Amino acid sequence: MIPTPPRTAILLIACPDRPGIVAAVADFIQRHGGNIVYLDQHVDRQEDAFFMRIEWQLDAFDLDDTRLISSFQEEVAGPRAMDWQLHYSDRRPRVALLVSKDAHCLYDLLSRHEADELDIDIPLVLSNHAHLRGATERFGIPFHVFPITAATKAAQEAAEHALLVENAIDTLVLARYMQILSPEMVARYPHRIINIHHSFLPAFAGARPYHQAYARGVKIIGATSHYVTSDLDEGPIIAQDVIRVSHKESVTDFVRDGKDLEKIVLARAVRAHVGRKVLVYKNRTIVFT
Amino acid sequence: MIPTPPRTAILLIACPDRPGIVAAVADFIQRHGGNIVYLDQHVDRQEDAFFMRIEWQLDAFDLDDTRLISSFQEEVAGPRAMDWQLHYSDRRPRVALLVSKDAHCLYDLLSRHEADELDIDIPLVLSNHAHLRGATERFGIPFHVFPITAATKAAQEAAEHALLVENAIDTLVLARYMQILSPEMVARYPHRIINIHHSFLPAFAGARPYHQAYARGVKIIGATSHYVTSDLDEGPIIAQDVIRVSHKESVTDFVRDGKDLEKIVLARAVRAHVGRKVLVYKNRTIVFT
Amino acid sequence: MIPTPPRTAILLIACPDRPGIVAAVADFIQRHGGNIVYLDQHVDRQEDAFFMRIEWQLDAFDLDDTRLISSFQEEVAGPRAMDWQLHYSDRRPRVALLVSKDAHCLYDLLSRHEADELDIDIPLVLSNHAHLRGATERFGIPFHVFPITAATKAAQEAAEHALLVENAIDTLVLARYMQILSPEMVARYPHRIINIHHSFLPAFAGARPYHQAYARGVKIIGATSHYVTSDLDEGPIIAQDVIRVSHKESVTDFVRDGKDLEKIVLARAVRAHVGRKVLVYKNRTIVFT
Amino acid sequence: MIPTPPRTAILLIACPDRPGIVAAVADFIQRHGGNIVYLDQHVDRQEDAFFMRIEWQLDAFDLDDTRLISSFQEEVAGPRAMDWQLHYSDRRPRVALLVSKDAHCLYDLLSRHEADELDIDIPLVLSNHAHLRGATERFGIPFHVFPITAATKAAQEAAEHALLVENAIDTLVLARYMQILSPEMVARYPHRIINIHHSFLPAFAGARPYHQAYARGVKIIGATSHYVTSDLDEGPIIAQDVIRVSHKESVTDFVRDGKDLEKIVLARAVRAHVGRKVLVYKNRTIVFT
Repeated sequence: MIPTPPRTAILLIACPDRPGIVAAVADFIQRHGGNIVYLDQHVDRQEDAFFMRIEWQLDAFDLDDTRLISSFQEEVAGPRAMDWQLHYSDRRPRVALLVSKDAHCLYDLLSRHEADELDIDIPLVLSNHAHLRGATERFGIPFHVFPITAATKAAQEAAEHALLVENAIDTLVLARYMQILSPEMVARYPHRIINIHHSFLPAFAGARPYHQAYARGVKIIGATSHYVTSDLDEGPIIAQDVIRVSHKESVTDFVRDGKDLEKIVLARAVRAHVGRKVLVYKNRTIVFT
Repeated sequence: MIPTPPRTAILLIACPDRPGIVAAVADFIQRHGGNIVYLDQHVDRQEDAFFMRIEWQLDAFDLDDTRLISSFQEEVAGPRAMDWQLHYSDRRPRVALLVSKDAHCLYDLLSRHEADELDIDIPLVLSNHAHLRGATERFGIPFHVFPITAATKAAQEAAEHALLVENAIDTLVLARYMQILSPEMVARYPHRIINIHHSFLPAFAGARPYHQAYARGVKIIGATSHYVTSDLDEGPIIAQDVIRVSHKESVTDFVRDGKDLEKIVLARAVRAHVGRKVLVYKNRTIVFT
Repeated sequence: MIPTPPRTAILLIACPDRPGIVAAVADFIQRHGGNIVYLDQHVDRQEDAFFMRIEWQLDAFDLDDTRLISSFQEEVAGPRAMDWQLHYSDRRPRVALLVSKDAHCLYDLLSRHEADELDIDIPLVLSNHAHLRGATERFGIPFHVFPITAATKAAQEAAEHALLVENAIDTLVLARYMQILSPEMVARYPHRIINIHHSFLPAFAGARPYHQAYARGVKIIGATSHYVTSDLDEGPIIAQDVIRVSHKESVTDFVRDGKDLEKIVLARAVRAHVGRKVLVYKNRTIVFT
Repeated sequence: MIPTPPRTAILLIACPDRPGIVAAVADFIQRHGGNIVYLDQHVDRQEDAFFMRIEWQLDAFDLDDTRLISSFQEEVAGPRAMDWQLHYSDRRPRVALLVSKDAHCLYDLLSRHEADELDIDIPLVLSNHAHLRGATERFGIPFHVFPITAATKAAQEAAEHALLVENAIDTLVLARYMQILSPEMVARYPHRIINIHHSFLPAFAGARPYHQAYARGVKIIGATSHYVTSDLDEGPIIAQDVIRVSHKESVTDFVRDGKDLEKIVLARAVRAHVGRKVLVYKNRTIVFT
């Protein structure tokens, strides 16, 4: 019913700002027969930094992957000290979900996946509990349990990592996974681990954020999806949203209403990430729309 | 054009929860000929605390102010260990605005006042700068400058206080007043000083919150109106609101867009306070609607 | 872990406004040993109409169901021309979901149900297509297909109704059910059929609301949950929410992003309804919080 | 304190989509020594239409206004059937405000103007009533009254137009101006008359939208700023925003709370328009950010 969209290439670029970057990149693509279907750029004046996302159709493009990489580096990127990433629309991200006991984010992502709303593969779900096995397997997705204690953490993470590698996973989504990943594990997936924290960060980092929010008497609660770094709840923020609360809501109500926030915000962050729309710069994100 | 609304009395009550409070209060008012036009109550189950706002028309009420106070205390409040406040709709709050150099909250409040949107008197505006004299005096409101330095602060606050007393001021509104009030000054107006802080508290308390927000890379910025206590930016929150931002906005944009938030949030808090709709309990507020 | 909450009774009351209603109702409950845990009332001054929701614990209440009904009618409701409904917290609403092909609302409601977030029974799901059979049966809930054509509609609705009666269903939730119910079917469940319409009603009633919204160039799209009446998309609104859009979103994006709105708004409406928090008056709702 | 920003040129472009447009425009600017500081483009796939806003610094640009126009038309725009507009950052829009009796939008715009928040001149305010003369003249801005009746409308509009021409006005802002402009008047300022309507259009077009909203029982009310066309309330929407309401709010509350929406939404639309960020296409707007 929906025709396959044409195959595209996507470049994400960060470099020092200077005149002529847009013209140079657009000209390169144009000269090689690419039809630009998306271009957005951003200049951070304070940092004199330039950012760009550009996507073009490959039907008439005359460079294959290898030559694209070498030509672009030589002709455009090298002289301008660019950091750049190249993606192809037909290489689907392979995503592992990590969960603990709360089902709402898991269900939300799996039902979006089933409805073809997210252009990803989900080869497996990992958990430190058996609790959500049934919920996962209902969707025909393998579920692996790795119970974690202080004593077993290193070994279990190594085993998890082996499984992830074996499944060619490139992105981890912590869908209310209530274990802190070790710095080693985090370092294996730089800016490729997405977490959902149930507060409006940086307010209420750490444990029991809804309890903290209740104690402080805020009138709005939030959820934050961010890349995981070795600093807990301090990674670059991808998406946030909030809802109003009042004195009428108890902590239990915060927990319940917050679930809607969490699942929506996490899904938005995942969608931006897998759509190759996020660039990280100095612990902040540029999220192209 | 708009007829004068009937004169009402308003009771704000806080007490330990127990059966029969609503019935007792409603019955008291009813027995004395009062027609209840508003009743809202809230039970905090965690604290076993009961809160109520009740308002009734006085046309046929058979107790004058003195007898109302003594009868209510004796018959209803005393036996139930109630904290309570009594207000009359025809005693308008007398509000002083304190400002520094930013005009947006001042203009917003003065134009609401001129449009009869806020049921208050504004006998004067205080400032630590002369900057907004013209803006204030345009509205026919006296403007008083009290420059503050570390050396003069105590004396100047004493002079300000004398002026406030002389003008029978009961509520202070810090409409982007960029001086910290001394604990002594704060203590003179318990839960009667309203501040607007330009962040989503408790995130980004203290100085330059928009700069802090930019550095952290948040996707939403906020404003918080709260009662001032001796702990800076830690007082009970009355109102908060937020707007979305993205990487496209600079700190300058945050400052500009945040002004809209600040003025709206401050106005909401002032309206709730002067409408006798706010109860403070354990550094949180109950804001009846 | 979570203790069973105490059994409560809930009264929803609508009547002409007059002095003393709150006192009379509260006193009645109090006299019979009920402990009021929730009371909210609303006066519509334009209509001189009074509305109330009151809930009390039954532990020490001295009236059984029959005597409560007769005593309340005689002592309180009759003399004041009250419309009233009585509910008990331990009588769970029995809800049938009606779906067509879109899975998002179905999954959302079933996963909330599985997480015990909604205090209801869902004995069955009805559909005019077989499409969502698997999604439903995964949750262990019977799925019944009633294909509908103009020719078969009356007979099929009669068969559906028989099944609903057999299952003691009291509430229908149209979770993106793309068939219009006949007036006869609607009349069987007055203010007990909840629909989700994918626009901010009354804008874009009828077919293809996202297409309509796109054509009009709105900057915000919405979803509306309402009771179904015989006037299509004209019933009393229970809940609405919106999200911002821009020229960057296509109709396809509206459809995708709107799904998040639809499932959240429908869930809020269902929660309010089954929590006995909704009163309908003159095609508007009072939704107690 | 704030240094003058460098002088820039801004191009707004609409044309049929085809490969190479971005490259051609960027290359043109680059070749002539312009430093691009902003570029955003949008492709409407349904219409195969391309839209672009591009802004560049003029310090080292080697074309004056006349040659820029002719060269761009000849080299870039002509061959691609472009509709295009050229603006310079140092040519400030000259804006007339039209008001009736409500002060909130007027005060809001004048105080933003005084705070240098809007980069415009406001040479005059027009009204059909004398009511807001004082409010306007306080800000040192001339106020002109043109009472309008059916009999005098044509003559009065002619007089208004003469005054607008005399003052070199290019944009009209209807800041709650409660008169319908004649089609002739509208035709003189195509897509340069900005109105604020106090509803979420297309819901509740026409008179008394808050009353309509109340009668329909919506849970959210809105405000819409749009370009005025000869079809009342049907012009291209520039900005919209909403707030939640409940059964507790009366029409009077809608009117009061709606004022905050109206002033914020109108200001956003004015800011986008005068920042040369709005393109109109098929009665919709592209609003670059």
